[in-house]
Amino acid sequence: MGDKLPVTDKQISNSPEDDNDIVDPWTVISKSDAGVDYDKLIKRFGCTYIDSELIERIERISKTPIHPLIKRGIFFSHRDLHALLNMVEAGKKFYLYTGRGPSSDSMHVGHLIPFIVTKWLQEAFDVPLVIQMTDDEKTLWKNLSVEETMKMARENAKDIIALGFDVNKTFIFSNLDYMGRCAAFYQNVIRIQKCVTFNQVKGIFGFCDSDVIGKISFPAIQAAPAFSSTFPFIFGADKVPVLIPCAIDQDPYFRMTRDVSPRLGFIKPALIHSCFFPALQGAKTKMSASDVNSAVFLTDTPKQIKTKINKYAFSGGRSTLEEHRKYGGNIDVDVSYQLLRFFLYDDEKLESIKTAYANGELLSGEMKKIAVETLQPIVADHQTKRKEVTDEILNQFMTPRKLNYDFQTVIY
Amino acid sequence: MGDKLPVTDKQISNSPEDDNDIVDPWTVISKSDAGVDYDKLIKRFGCTYIDSELIERIERISKTPIHPLIKRGIFFSHRDLHALLNMVEAGKKFYLYTGRGPSSDSMHVGHLIPFIVTKWLQEAFDVPLVIQMTDDEKTLWKNLSVEETMKMARENAKDIIALGFDVNKTFIFSNLDYMGRCAAFYQNVIRIQKCVTFNQVKGIFGFCDSDVIGKISFPAIQAAPAFSSTFPFIFGADKVPVLIPCAIDQDPYFRMTRDVSPRLGFIKPALIHSCFFPALQGAKTKMSASDVNSAVFLTDTPKQIKTKINKYAFSGGRSTLEEHRKYGGNIDVDVSYQLLRFFLYDDEKLESIKTAYANGELLSGEMKKIAVETLQPIVADHQTKRKEVTDEILNQFMTPRKLNYDFQTVIY
Repeated sequence: MGDKLPVTDKQISNSPEDDNDIVDPWTVISKSDAGVDYDKLIKRFGCTYIDSELIERIERISKTPIHPLIKRGIFFSHRDLHALLNMVEAGKKFYLYTGRGPSSDSMHVGHLIPFIVTKWLQEAFDVPLVIQMTDDEKTLWKNLSVEETMKMARENAKDIIALGFDVNKTFIFSNLDYMGRCAAFYQNVIRIQKCVTFNQVKGIFGFCDSDVIGKISFPAIQAAPAFSSTFPFIFGADKVPVLIPCAIDQDPYFRMTRDVSPRLGFIKPALIHSCFFPALQGAKTKMSASDVNSAVFLTDTPKQIKTKINKYAFSGGRSTLEEHRKYGGNIDVDVSYQLLRFFLYDDEKLESIKTAYANGELLSGEMKKIAVETLQPIVADHQTKRKEVTDEILNQFMTPRKLNYDFQTVIY
Repeated sequence: MGDKLPVTDKQISNSPEDDNDIVDPWTVISKSDAGVDYDKLIKRFGCTYIDSELIERIERISKTPIHPLIKRGIFFSHRDLHALLNMVEAGKKFYLYTGRGPSSDSMHVGHLIPFIVTKWLQEAFDVPLVIQMTDDEKTLWKNLSVEETMKMARENAKDIIALGFDVNKTFIFSNLDYMGRCAAFYQNVIRIQKCVTFNQVKGIFGFCDSDVIGKISFPAIQAAPAFSSTFPFIFGADKVPVLIPCAIDQDPYFRMTRDVSPRLGFIKPALIHSCFFPALQGAKTKMSASDVNSAVFLTDTPKQIKTKINKYAFSGGRSTLEEHRKYGGNIDVDVSYQLLRFFLYDDEKLESIKTAYANGELLSGEMKKIAVETLQPIVADHQTKRKEVTDEILNQFMTPRKLNYDFQTVIY
């Protein structure tokens, strides 16, 4: 894999074998200040590290230098990516599927990460993309009405579009809207719901008898877009393979999806997983839009960004200036440095910051200043681009339609 | 209630208190040859007998003589029918909702019963009607594909239309089709699924941990059409009360629906329940399209009807001619007589047949002959009318559209 993971051997030894981090689609809680133990997680989930050989293969086939977020091991894990690349080498196309759970009007900077890599993959391989907004999920899990989450889905979709997705190659849909626009979606949901028992979702997601039936059946709704027949207007009758970029907490959904794939006559979806974007308070948990002080929002002003990072960003610095100069800062737990790993794509500059901090040359306040000055223009630029995303443009993205691809010749 | 129920005091005393019939949407098994103990069932389910006072009230308000199937106690039970009639008297409209689970291409004669009464109610009160074809349910419960049950839904809908429903006042929909045509349906399904826990459906329907998640969440799909907002093209934004005619085995769905109604901002649906249509082999179980010898199908020839009734229809006759003449036949268990209760609407003639059989004047063979000669022209006439139901007519019924009603002024 690339640069390095935010997990070191030391942290693994800090976690007793029976003391797992909590990682599921609704909760991420780590035992360590440096965040989730991904070595253990990869073993528990049964997925595979993205190694340098795989990265080289991606570059060779896509004829594109790898994205920094993959090179740095932020996208660190996969399932069946080699099998997918075999098909690409054999001249076959695939499509990308990712999603977003809209639980607030505004997204935070961490929400951009999967979409940044998805966009890179789409351009590197020139493939169509479908993006699911799980407004139904958020209605079921949160104290939010159907109307509220549908509105949030549209607001969040504008933020996604602002990243520069191509309307001719991208379909964005809200479940609470699209379910009523294409019967193939519900038909696949029923096919999936026929293959999965309560016992299975209990094992995979930890559901219990007091959970509402909407939660229990929801995993099928997130699984359905992994089958190309859910989008007949894009793929016709062809069975097109899929690659799903997502944060690793979403993996349980797709383990279930992979289990049912053969029964629906499809090959299993390939996946590429990112690690979590840390909360400002530290990597013990992920940044959350529900906790306003844990996150830098895409709507924050330069001043708000500065204040939040200065006030809340967990520091890896020492207690005193003297100690810091002598022993150096701890980059593994320093949230400002972690932010730079996600958003500062100049490798040399990042490396020199890292070294200087670890050496004690760079102080915590200086590290925060670099993080603030890196994020401020990214967020401001995003706000400018988002303003250009009108309701009309949004409606174009959200209209079921033929995309600019001919899949009539694809077989696998 | 009317004429009489197929349950007598004698049968109640035959059933120990702890020895209940099995009645749920998937199984009807009675301990008695005379069929399910409806007295006990009504108590268990907590619904109310339709008494002569209620029948008179229906006649008075609708200005229509009551239908024989209600008069004879075949539709014998209700929930909140008085409350609905209060609203009608106050000048408010309601709509009718009923359904059919399409598990075979052909329906049997018993399947017509709820639709015959529904049609009578629609005409007596001049109200719109929605009919749900639960093809999704049959895919989930039976070894049938999405494609197969969707085809069955269309075939069965033609049989329903052949009864003479008015296309301007009736909307028929298949779940696997309509879910993709109107987002309001799925939105209501999610609202309902948010209100009901697995514990609740376990208690109501007997689901267990090894059931597939589609079954567990399905009750919300059957509940949704009980809310007028599931059909915005018919009712606009108005909250219109509903009356649901159905066989009493469907009551569990609507007990659940009534429980969630207030949380969705609707009043509870009113219901009118029918008893079961007996299998030819006897009223211990209901006629089933899955057992070809248990049922007279709407596709049967006159000869098939004659053969089936002669061969299979359980007889209440005595072992010998002498005994029959002396003691008389048992009309409570005689399936041929029960068929006449459902299909021979000449009250005087039915009464004289009953008396003659009970007296021993009428023999079992003669009773079977009357049943055969009653059903043959009904089925033949149905077949003629069904031939006239083209795909075009079917598509008209199944297209979401404004019906011939103005609900803009309805409030409650």
